[in-house]
Amino acid sequence: MSAPLPETMDWSKDGGLLPLIVQHAHDARVLMVGYANREALARTLETGEVHFWSRSKQRIWCKGESSGHFLRVREIRVDCDQDALVMLVEPEGPACHTGARSCFYRRLVDDRLEPVEQP
Amino acid sequence: MSAPLPETMDWSKDGGLLPLIVQHAHDARVLMVGYANREALARTLETGEVHFWSRSKQRIWCKGESSGHFLRVREIRVDCDQDALVMLVEPEGPACHTGARSCFYRRLVDDRLEPVEQP
Repeated sequence: MSAPLPETMDWSKDGGLLPLIVQHAHDARVLMVGYANREALARTLETGEVHFWSRSKQRIWCKGESSGHFLRVREIRVDCDQDALVMLVEPEGPACHTGARSCFYRRLVDDRLEPVEQP
Repeated sequence: MSAPLPETMDWSKDGGLLPLIVQHAHDARVLMVGYANREALARTLETGEVHFWSRSKQRIWCKGESSGHFLRVREIRVDCDQDALVMLVEPEGPACHTGARSCFYRRLVDDRLEPVEQP
């Protein structure tokens, strides 16, 4: 992966942040969602590991920098408007800070949230 | 599906908008991403069809209202922070306004965007 992708994206909205959806490369499970700015995308392309712009930390955040649970990028997809990204990854561990495989570990059943069965 | 889910979500950020990721219920392909406010989520729960808050139109937008390509909700997943949604759907047609099955119809190959093969 190389440099031109950041130039392709539309950074004009939301203070230059794009939604970044992380999906498992093998079973397509959505693992987490965050935001990327131009620098985070550049760092992801350079390193092959998913970097976000953390709005709470107000800095670039490499997922796994403290947990070791890096997300290794296998494919990057771009939407029709060039303002959203999907990254297919092989995760080094659970994506969620709770220890769940995916942050989306609950689903609505009737009117309650229940655990999604692990595959 | 019934009412309590909107109360569970954290609407305190981004002017009450949450990212809403739409995924195909059968092959888990990410079809599109948008935003939901509380009313859009309530309408989705009532009708079983995905409703967004359209930031460009500045109104609730039922995907399919003009194209007929509705997104029928089969499952709703909620993330750890209750500030993002994944909806697994059966689409009535292409999700993308370009006619592609998914808005994420291009992937990065070397430094170019190339079509994702259709399954």
